[in-house]
Amino acid sequence: MTRVVVDVMPKPEILDPQGKAVLGALPRLGFSGVTDVRQGKRFELEVAGEVTEDVLDQVRQMAETLLSNPVIEYFEVHVEADA
Amino acid sequence: MTRVVVDVMPKPEILDPQGKAVLGALPRLGFSGVTDVRQGKRFELEVAGEVTEDVLDQVRQMAETLLSNPVIEYFEVHVEADA
Repeated sequence: MTRVVVDVMPKPEILDPQGKAVLGALPRLGFSGVTDVRQGKRFELEVAGEVTEDVLDQVRQMAETLLSNPVIEYFEVHVEADA
Repeated sequence: MTRVVVDVMPKPEILDPQGKAVLGALPRLGFSGVTDVRQGKRFELEVAGEVTEDVLDQVRQMAETLLSNPVIEYFEVHVEADA
């Protein structure tokens, strides 16, 4: 069993109200030094069998069609060490 | 400017309906080979200045108090290469 991770983040030019809310809350909670926050999604997919380039292509297609909205988000796919 | 990433995921023993919904949708979209999906959150924090162990401790406190719900979620903090 191998874990493939898909990180989905709002594109840099897209306003991210959730991230801005976190950024605004930090000083109120006594935290300083953070100049920007972006909030996105993380998907952990457990894949049976070996993760070949074909499998990664399939995961990229899932990310494009189901896990992200390519108009406002970009994604990154990477393989994690075996669980 | 350094990017610190906080990954927040539902604990393994916690039901993850969003992940289950994705898992259920995959075969309907023609994808096979994925046996489990968990959905969590990813925060990208831009930190001014050097990221010392003190700064990372602060980020861990933010993750514990603001970014995650420690009852049902766990988190991981890591530093990304300079932007």
